[in-house]
Amino acid sequence: MRMVDLIIKKQEGKALTKEEIRFIIDGYTDGSIPDYQMSAWAMAVFFQDMTDEERMELTIAMAESGDQIDLSAIAGIKVDKHSTGGVGDTTTLVLAPLVASCGVPVAKMSGRGLGHTGGTLDKLESIPGFHVEIDEETFASIVNENKVAVIGQSGNLCPADKKLYALRDVTGTVNSLPLIASSIMCKKIAAGADAIVLDVKIGAGAFMKTEEDARALAHAMVKIGNLAGRKTMAIISDMSQPLGVAVGNALEVEVAIETLKGNGPQDLEALCIELGSQMVYLGGKAADLAEARKLVTENLRNGKALEKFKVFVASQGGNPAVVDDYSLMPQASRQQDVLAEASGYVTEIVADDIGVAAMLLGAGRATKESTIDLSAGLKVLKKVGDPVQKGEVIVTMFANKADFGPAEKLIQEAYSIGAERKEITLIHGIITD
Amino acid sequence: MRMVDLIIKKQEGKALTKEEIRFIIDGYTDGSIPDYQMSAWAMAVFFQDMTDEERMELTIAMAESGDQIDLSAIAGIKVDKHSTGGVGDTTTLVLAPLVASCGVPVAKMSGRGLGHTGGTLDKLESIPGFHVEIDEETFASIVNENKVAVIGQSGNLCPADKKLYALRDVTGTVNSLPLIASSIMCKKIAAGADAIVLDVKIGAGAFMKTEEDARALAHAMVKIGNLAGRKTMAIISDMSQPLGVAVGNALEVEVAIETLKGNGPQDLEALCIELGSQMVYLGGKAADLAEARKLVTENLRNGKALEKFKVFVASQGGNPAVVDDYSLMPQASRQQDVLAEASGYVTEIVADDIGVAAMLLGAGRATKESTIDLSAGLKVLKKVGDPVQKGEVIVTMFANKADFGPAEKLIQEAYSIGAERKEITLIHGIITD
Repeated sequence: MRMVDLIIKKQEGKALTKEEIRFIIDGYTDGSIPDYQMSAWAMAVFFQDMTDEERMELTIAMAESGDQIDLSAIAGIKVDKHSTGGVGDTTTLVLAPLVASCGVPVAKMSGRGLGHTGGTLDKLESIPGFHVEIDEETFASIVNENKVAVIGQSGNLCPADKKLYALRDVTGTVNSLPLIASSIMCKKIAAGADAIVLDVKIGAGAFMKTEEDARALAHAMVKIGNLAGRKTMAIISDMSQPLGVAVGNALEVEVAIETLKGNGPQDLEALCIELGSQMVYLGGKAADLAEARKLVTENLRNGKALEKFKVFVASQGGNPAVVDDYSLMPQASRQQDVLAEASGYVTEIVADDIGVAAMLLGAGRATKESTIDLSAGLKVLKKVGDPVQKGEVIVTMFANKADFGPAEKLIQEAYSIGAERKEITLIHGIITD
Repeated sequence: MRMVDLIIKKQEGKALTKEEIRFIIDGYTDGSIPDYQMSAWAMAVFFQDMTDEERMELTIAMAESGDQIDLSAIAGIKVDKHSTGGVGDTTTLVLAPLVASCGVPVAKMSGRGLGHTGGTLDKLESIPGFHVEIDEETFASIVNENKVAVIGQSGNLCPADKKLYALRDVTGTVNSLPLIASSIMCKKIAAGADAIVLDVKIGAGAFMKTEEDARALAHAMVKIGNLAGRKTMAIISDMSQPLGVAVGNALEVEVAIETLKGNGPQDLEALCIELGSQMVYLGGKAADLAEARKLVTENLRNGKALEKFKVFVASQGGNPAVVDDYSLMPQASRQQDVLAEASGYVTEIVADDIGVAAMLLGAGRATKESTIDLSAGLKVLKKVGDPVQKGEVIVTMFANKADFGPAEKLIQEAYSIGAERKEITLIHGIITD
């Protein structure tokens, strides 16, 4: 087999076989296929696409290119959740205890990553004492006992994907549906999930800007998962404005706890109920989505999810008293309000700009070397559809060292205030095949 | 400017500007743009094509990426000819003295190259004493005096093209019209031609297999040349069967001399008259193509072209007596006939197979290190349309060391003999814009 022939086969719009895809991914991983052939192939894929079977084979080949996590020591159907990323998205902190409280094991590997805020690990470390350095055996036994634990990503997961992703970034082949879908799915599969729930975001704060693109990506990933023998569903949800009412690390933990208490912002709660229902259904703890939704909603109302959160925090060394005293978490030394410049209704909040503002305040990492200020970030007090008076507080900023000026400027630019009330649809679709 | 943005611009089907194309080619030449970006860009070009302006700018940028030959010391309009390559194509050996005899300066840089036979330089070196190592000053003065001289390609011509061509070969991007056309034209322009005549071949022995593809390539190259300020024309000619009646080095010189004597094979003579007419017209020695054709045909009949050939050979150290005594050239020690396996008419001779057979006999180079046997090759005694009796000689093979067996097998496979007489159209079109 020669790589140049496989490039030409894809260029001509033909489907590659399992063996051919395996040859490409194995060769690229071990360096026998050079970058310049891989980038030409990726560009051919951009123009000619891949069949569902090809996408699945590509995903499996990348998942098998490195270490694969073995979760077999954990009883039950392990369900993982993945979000394509957004601003103020603290669903994982709510879902982990919520779904666990319904009896579904949540064995979550999480990352830190670059972005507007830290990753789930950083957020959890806002809780005093909480640590994620747990060995695999302890991890399995905690999940078996409590149904929930979160550890840091370890091992060499999907090296083929890492290498290909970096190459795509500099060769104009990022925006290819089969390559995006397989890149996301291979990591979920390598991480050992039996079933996968996907939250595909659309809007200004998301990777997919249109509903059409988001639907295509969701369908592609659901197909890959199901063809690969991992039951997979997806939700398409709004990310035109930030989700919930906080962007930051400790600030988002606070909002997550409020949500587990039943006092969460309406959009965050609604999304957690939808994602949680899918997880509970795929985890085999409900006969259908309706029954799962009932169970999830109940556990959010009756305190069982909150109780599970306390157990979860305590099992990883954290102080569960944080649930009743947010001041146990890092507090910013300074805060400043952003005031509405006009009266009317909030008609738009560009999510991306709000995210960047939070990063400027210290909440995120711009590079791997940056340190995160866990207390920094912002509270979003007015959301799209809310009435507002000129001079009223729309956002409160929290910081220690950072200047408020540049963040405030961005926040003002992100907000539009108009005469007509506008509503945002939160959930655009549920994709099951 | 960032290469990734230019890759995406081309991926989106937009035209690149002169500055952008210059950035790409200069960066690729100096190594600041890596192979993996260049191959992704080439694949995007494959799918999205280039405008006539882009093709011209790409050609010029590649021509200017290395040395450029300065022919200004030579008086008159210097006309160059290029053939896309074929089997038995000895037109250059006829055209150089023929066109020079009409007063057009022929300052030819030629190569050796890989292929079924050697290049023009190898063929000329079949003539005892002939040498091509001439310094630039002598070269110019010979052309000014005699109107014709041939030297070996020197200097670092079109390094961008060399690098890109090698990359295309392994990344499935060879078969892209704008990349093929610019690759050919940049070398002609760097070699200093004021005007260019192109011979685009079609058929089994040619790079372009269909008339449609050949026409597209001819139009593309003529457009590039004219936009770049070099008057350019093209002929589309048949290469489904070998041209002329010999494939080899000394053997082709013999056929070229016969043609200059007015005894050449009909197809080779017709093609030389067409190409020669275009060269004479573009060289400003005739008011139109009809007048040029008249002049060229006369000089082939009245001995002036042959006379010029003798002067040309003598001026570069060769023995002009070769014109009357072919045995002065290298002679093969062995020869063997290939006999017709059936009676009827020759309906097909797959040119490529005949070329490979000649190479097996020793006429060509498989690698740069191979040595050529100047006396080896074959004479094609029966061509498409000729009647033939079973057992009659169709081809005579010439070799010193090589086995005749494998070549004979190929030759038999290349020939088809049928009941119906078939004619081949030699010239499929003349492209002037």
